[in-house]
Amino acid sequence: MTTDTSTTTTLDADMLAYGQQARAASRLLMRADDAQKSAALLHIASRLQAQAEVLKAENAQDVEKARANGLEPAMLDRLTLSDKSLALMATGLRQIAALEDPVGSRSETRIRPNGMRVSKMRIPLGVVGIIYESRPNVTVDAAALCLKSGNAAILRGGSEAFCSNQALGQIIQEGLAHAGLPTHAVQTINTTDRAAVGRLITLADYVDVIIPRGGKGLIRRLEAEATVPMIRHLDGNCHVYIDRDADLKMAHDIAFQAKTYRYGVCGSMETLLVHQDVAQQILPALAAAYIEKDVELRGCERTRQLVPQAAPATDEDWATEYLAAILAIRIVDSIDEAMVHIARWSSGHTEAIVTDSLTAANRFQREVDSSSVYVNLPTVFADGFEYGLGAEIGISTNRLHARGPVGLEGLTTYKWVLEGNGQLRG
Amino acid sequence: MTTDTSTTTTLDADMLAYGQQARAASRLLMRADDAQKSAALLHIASRLQAQAEVLKAENAQDVEKARANGLEPAMLDRLTLSDKSLALMATGLRQIAALEDPVGSRSETRIRPNGMRVSKMRIPLGVVGIIYESRPNVTVDAAALCLKSGNAAILRGGSEAFCSNQALGQIIQEGLAHAGLPTHAVQTINTTDRAAVGRLITLADYVDVIIPRGGKGLIRRLEAEATVPMIRHLDGNCHVYIDRDADLKMAHDIAFQAKTYRYGVCGSMETLLVHQDVAQQILPALAAAYIEKDVELRGCERTRQLVPQAAPATDEDWATEYLAAILAIRIVDSIDEAMVHIARWSSGHTEAIVTDSLTAANRFQREVDSSSVYVNLPTVFADGFEYGLGAEIGISTNRLHARGPVGLEGLTTYKWVLEGNGQLRG
Repeated sequence: MTTDTSTTTTLDADMLAYGQQARAASRLLMRADDAQKSAALLHIASRLQAQAEVLKAENAQDVEKARANGLEPAMLDRLTLSDKSLALMATGLRQIAALEDPVGSRSETRIRPNGMRVSKMRIPLGVVGIIYESRPNVTVDAAALCLKSGNAAILRGGSEAFCSNQALGQIIQEGLAHAGLPTHAVQTINTTDRAAVGRLITLADYVDVIIPRGGKGLIRRLEAEATVPMIRHLDGNCHVYIDRDADLKMAHDIAFQAKTYRYGVCGSMETLLVHQDVAQQILPALAAAYIEKDVELRGCERTRQLVPQAAPATDEDWATEYLAAILAIRIVDSIDEAMVHIARWSSGHTEAIVTDSLTAANRFQREVDSSSVYVNLPTVFADGFEYGLGAEIGISTNRLHARGPVGLEGLTTYKWVLEGNGQLRG
Repeated sequence: MTTDTSTTTTLDADMLAYGQQARAASRLLMRADDAQKSAALLHIASRLQAQAEVLKAENAQDVEKARANGLEPAMLDRLTLSDKSLALMATGLRQIAALEDPVGSRSETRIRPNGMRVSKMRIPLGVVGIIYESRPNVTVDAAALCLKSGNAAILRGGSEAFCSNQALGQIIQEGLAHAGLPTHAVQTINTTDRAAVGRLITLADYVDVIIPRGGKGLIRRLEAEATVPMIRHLDGNCHVYIDRDADLKMAHDIAFQAKTYRYGVCGSMETLLVHQDVAQQILPALAAAYIEKDVELRGCERTRQLVPQAAPATDEDWATEYLAAILAIRIVDSIDEAMVHIARWSSGHTEAIVTDSLTAANRFQREVDSSSVYVNLPTVFADGFEYGLGAEIGISTNRLHARGPVGLEGLTTYKWVLEGNGQLRG
């Protein structure tokens, strides 16, 4: 037997053990009541702060290594644990503990003609595998959302944060034990071997869903290999359409914030569509505001007649999620042309219309096939807190199961519960 | 270029065309109103009966070929179209037309502190690919359920029913045209080349979900290759547990019907679990009733002391979905042991408890992790009509998205709709 085979065999056995332990823990967690789950979360919150020195020491090893490897300053900053970032994590845990537990709630109850009662009961997904990159706070957030919704979690963080994640994972397990919950309810994978990810996404008997949080490249790669279903986020190529019947002051403010609120977020507008009847009134001042903010503009031909500073836009611009201070602008003849553009180029994430026409608003809501469709709001509202869902584990661009911001409910599924008193089938 | 390559290229191009045409039709169908969709269904219903002679002539070609190929009589029977089977299809279409259209309905509406309104809107899945075996009525049922829920369908029936399916497909397309809907909203694949299935399940840009209806072998094969998500049905290894606190007359009737209602349906009970305290009272008479019905019994050791006619049951029996007149029986010490058995051996389809204890009923409902869990009802209620969902396209054993009987709502997803009047993010 070569060393290589033996390593593979060990990894297979290790990953299988993670899966089996998670499944066993999931069966217990599924029936845990809210008080117990919340007690664990609150205990973890207080331990994070009590153990701050230990956590910072472990984290310092990651930071030192990352700095030696030449990780850029912004990334180093995101990697570093401080008293402030630990306090934020603890606050996040307390907020999640205070959310309503969806598990066990019933809906759509109906009494059938034979007297039996049919309803849907919310239940945990089961075992959730989460694959993410360098920020260690994801370890705590993701564990907390899974725990509160009754799911066992297997966490695979980035190798840059390995020591931090292991230390955080230990505190989480102490919190679980403290509340009388199985410690395997949250496991952090204790190897940086990249092959572990390949195993995790094919453990279909033990893992019910994979949630990858990372770049599009990572996710495409996982999709090609995974046999476990995924809740995943791809592009956010989002549009704002300013209709002929828009309030132009409102349209200006919405279009401005949709681009400039934060460039790197998935709900950021990447293409602005403007009805030809209002383009001349709105575009010059709006373009000036963008340029003042150092946003680079690219426009269709008609746009460039009104905004000479815009470079010519190509199909590549319509297709691109810039995630940067760049904006493509197109003037359209009608709401139909706007919706054709969106159908052709959108990634199906979030689209907005600015209009005072009820007909236009209704058509846009009904016909635009994106996971979030807004009327008179900037696309940057794409966030679980803003939707009233509480903390989110991500924003899904799936078509099935959870779509848009995924909070606790997105981490659950349902079973049918039927209750009778001896009815037989006719 | 070899012939083989050229054939492959043609098939690729054909399948791509099905996908693109379906996507284009789906965009129109998504916004069709209920009156239009129902008009198409009613027209198809009347045309099925008006064109009965044509349909039976096409079907006769399939039947003749199948008989020559030695298809067994029961299968030939399922393949054959008659005035009666066409009338049943027409009735089914009229029932589906009368169901409530889920598309466009809103739920979970909430007003956020900043005054914006957040809700979920039901929308079609988009393009649904359906892969099924020999019964031609599935062509009509599946097309109707997809159409009513606003989905474009690509249908791939069994090669035995090729001529029948093509003829039915043509009538469906006439109905679509009659109602002013795109004819590509329902396409039947016009080749029996098995490679077409392999293409269909990987057309991820054009097909949103695959619903396979067929044996477990087919489905496992598709799962290994598909890149499009599936709503699929695997095993139905279903259990009835007779609790210590059961009404024994009710338990007898439920356990008897759960096995004998129909042997070949997925909701049929395969293993009966009986609490030790009531085994002696209930098992001998129940066993006699099964034996009277020619049900073959296999039991654990304790069962065999009460029911000497039972053969010894092995782990293979606990694991098997017989779909036949065979039943495994096990005596357990407690509800806990019953639930451990179910957790170990169930396929997660449908499980039932017979009990008058509220505590036992609640525990069973909460802790048994199957897609349907019943109290005081036989497992054979696993059917969309019985749940009040109307016609079903299948029974899902997925964990995500639709579970249990899948009716119109299971063929939809949702989008978030946010409405404001110029709110900006803080």
